[in-house]
Amino acid sequence: MEQDQIFVKMAVDSWNGQLAATSKLLDKLTDEQLQEEVSPGKNRGVYLLGHLVAVHDKMLSLLLLRDELYPELYPVFVQSPDKEHADLPSIAQLREQWTAVNEKLNGHINKLKAEEWFGRHANISAEDLAKEPHRNRLNVLLSRTNHLSNHRGQLALLVK
Amino acid sequence: MEQDQIFVKMAVDSWNGQLAATSKLLDKLTDEQLQEEVSPGKNRGVYLLGHLVAVHDKMLSLLLLRDELYPELYPVFVQSPDKEHADLPSIAQLREQWTAVNEKLNGHINKLKAEEWFGRHANISAEDLAKEPHRNRLNVLLSRTNHLSNHRGQLALLVK
Repeated sequence: MEQDQIFVKMAVDSWNGQLAATSKLLDKLTDEQLQEEVSPGKNRGVYLLGHLVAVHDKMLSLLLLRDELYPELYPVFVQSPDKEHADLPSIAQLREQWTAVNEKLNGHINKLKAEEWFGRHANISAEDLAKEPHRNRLNVLLSRTNHLSNHRGQLALLVK
Repeated sequence: MEQDQIFVKMAVDSWNGQLAATSKLLDKLTDEQLQEEVSPGKNRGVYLLGHLVAVHDKMLSLLLLRDELYPELYPVFVQSPDKEHADLPSIAQLREQWTAVNEKLNGHINKLKAEEWFGRHANISAEDLAKEPHRNRLNVLLSRTNHLSNHRGQLALLVK
């Protein structure tokens, strides 16, 4: 295996590991538990679930793979704090969207070749990437893996 | 910049970013806040701080860099759950150890050459690494970066 393929495998495995652990955790949490705040006065589980769906959905366009599936979630779960919108999507719907968006994303992720991972994403020009080659698509994946770990740690607090 | 150096920069930047964000968060939290549970019935801030110090300290030997600085923390903060030990080190001491262990670790991390990152760590033999080359030192760094993100998300709940 070439060194660039090894690194891509490491980053994709790390993403898949966090994704699998989060899906397992969400399966364990009831809808009632997801309605609770992860700590008094902090975000509710349902908000964090919607937030993760919206951020992963945005990766589809950020990684130049395709348009978002659910662009309506971004203003509600990323650009607004929890409790600002009274009429959130149901937890059942967000659970389905969580599965659908990650399946769509991973369909693309598993097909990208190593050299494509080192290409540009939507928020950087080819000129800037030439100067700062680490600001590539794979770096987005690393960053979103950390983001997922961060919120998974919070969602885990809802387990009784 | 060679492609292997680009990966290493991405992984090390990601580690340093999480470390800086966690140190900033710890500076913001008072000792009183760190004595609180991150959510009712869950780990206290002081335990998570000790846990991160112990896990980062263990990285010194796992990455084959040197012996641990504070091996006495591992049984208390990794092999035991919170509230099992009545006499924990003081928060002042753990704060100093957090800084010291990360400085020691980063002194080594910043000197490792790209090819050294793709070498073995203490928990894998040279034979197994030849078969599974992604199980290298850099993979440990990716994994510990996710671990740090996970617990940083929990510590952030202590901010009022």
